[in-house]
Amino acid sequence: MDKISIGPQTLISPMPTLLVGANVDAKPNFMAVAWGGIAGSQPPMISVGIQPHRYTYKGIRQNMTFSVNVPSTDMVREADYCGIVSGSRVDKVEVCQFKVFYGKLDDAPLIEQCPINLECKVVHILDLGSHSLVIGRIEETHVSESCLTDGKPDISKIKPFAFITSPTSQYQALGEVIAKAFSIGRELEAKE
Amino acid sequence: MDKISIGPQTLISPMPTLLVGANVDAKPNFMAVAWGGIAGSQPPMISVGIQPHRYTYKGIRQNMTFSVNVPSTDMVREADYCGIVSGSRVDKVEVCQFKVFYGKLDDAPLIEQCPINLECKVVHILDLGSHSLVIGRIEETHVSESCLTDGKPDISKIKPFAFITSPTSQYQALGEVIAKAFSIGRELEAKE
Repeated sequence: MDKISIGPQTLISPMPTLLVGANVDAKPNFMAVAWGGIAGSQPPMISVGIQPHRYTYKGIRQNMTFSVNVPSTDMVREADYCGIVSGSRVDKVEVCQFKVFYGKLDDAPLIEQCPINLECKVVHILDLGSHSLVIGRIEETHVSESCLTDGKPDISKIKPFAFITSPTSQYQALGEVIAKAFSIGRELEAKE
Repeated sequence: MDKISIGPQTLISPMPTLLVGANVDAKPNFMAVAWGGIAGSQPPMISVGIQPHRYTYKGIRQNMTFSVNVPSTDMVREADYCGIVSGSRVDKVEVCQFKVFYGKLDDAPLIEQCPINLECKVVHILDLGSHSLVIGRIEETHVSESCLTDGKPDISKIKPFAFITSPTSQYQALGEVIAKAFSIGRELEAKE
C-alpha cells in the first residue's frame, strides 16, 4: 500500500473539501464536509461542522471516532457524490470503489485513494443549531508516499481542492504560490 | 466606502488566510489566523483557533466580540506581517495603513481594504491545549461592492489565499474551477 504513517499532524490547511468517515452500524461510510478546520496543534485538533441528522454522524456518536480524508482533484466526482447521497440509502464505498483501510483506531475507516488520512478521537461535540461542531484529537496521520517530496507531504502532489459557495457552488484547485510565509511581511518592518 | 451590508453569512470557505481583529484596551489590533473554519449555518457560526497568549486574544476576552477579515492576494504582505509581529509591540493598523471601520458591533474593528468582513459575538471558548477555539456567531457580513457579480460575492474578485504549511510555509492563490458542485457527482448515480 502506498502509505506511510507520520504521526499526528495538522496537514489539511487550507481547508479543502474533506471526506469524513465513520463506521455506522459497523460499516464504513463517508460524507463530504467543507466546514472543517484545524483547531489546535499541541495536541493536534480538528473541527468539523456536521448536521446531526447525517448518517455519518450516527457512526461518529456510536464510536466517538472519525476519519478525515483529503481527496485530490482527480477524486472530485467521488467527493461530490459523497455530498449528494446518504449512506442510509446507498453503499458509497461500493459506488465510489473506495479502498478502505484502518490504522491505529478500530472504527475510523480511511480511504486509500485519498493522499492524506487523519484518524481522530472525539473530544467535544458542541450543539450550534443547524450543525454540531465535532472536535477531534488527531491520533494518527497517513500520507501517500507518492505525495512526498524529500520526506514531506507536498501540497503540489496532494492537490486538494476547495468548495466555493459564491457566486455559485463549485470546486477549485489551488493556484500559484504568491509569497513565502513569515518572510514577505518583513518588508513592512521598515515602516515600524 | 466601497461596502454594502448583506447580513450574516458564511462566505469564507475555503479557509483562506484570515485577519482576526479585536479592540485591545480600546485600540484595534489584527492577527493572521489560518486555523479558522465555518462551524454552522443557522445561525452562521465560525471558529478560530488562537493561542491564548496572543495579544488579540486579550481583546477578544475583554469584549467577547471579534472580526474576521479576508485579505486579497494584493494584501499578502500585510497579512504575513500581522502574523509575524505582536500588537503589544507595534501598531499594526498604522504600519499596514489599514482603514478601520465598525459595523453593528461596537468593538469588532473591520478592515476596509479586505473584501469580506465578518462581525462576530463569542458564544463558546474551548481550551484545547496550545490553542483556544473561539466560536463566534456571525452577526453581520460586509463585502466590497467591487467584489460582487450580479449582487453576489464573487470569489474570483475576492481573491482569497491559503496558508500552506507543507512542504514549506507559503501562500497560494486559488486556481482553476475543476467542477460544479452538487452536479458532477451525479454521474456516479448510474453505478448505484
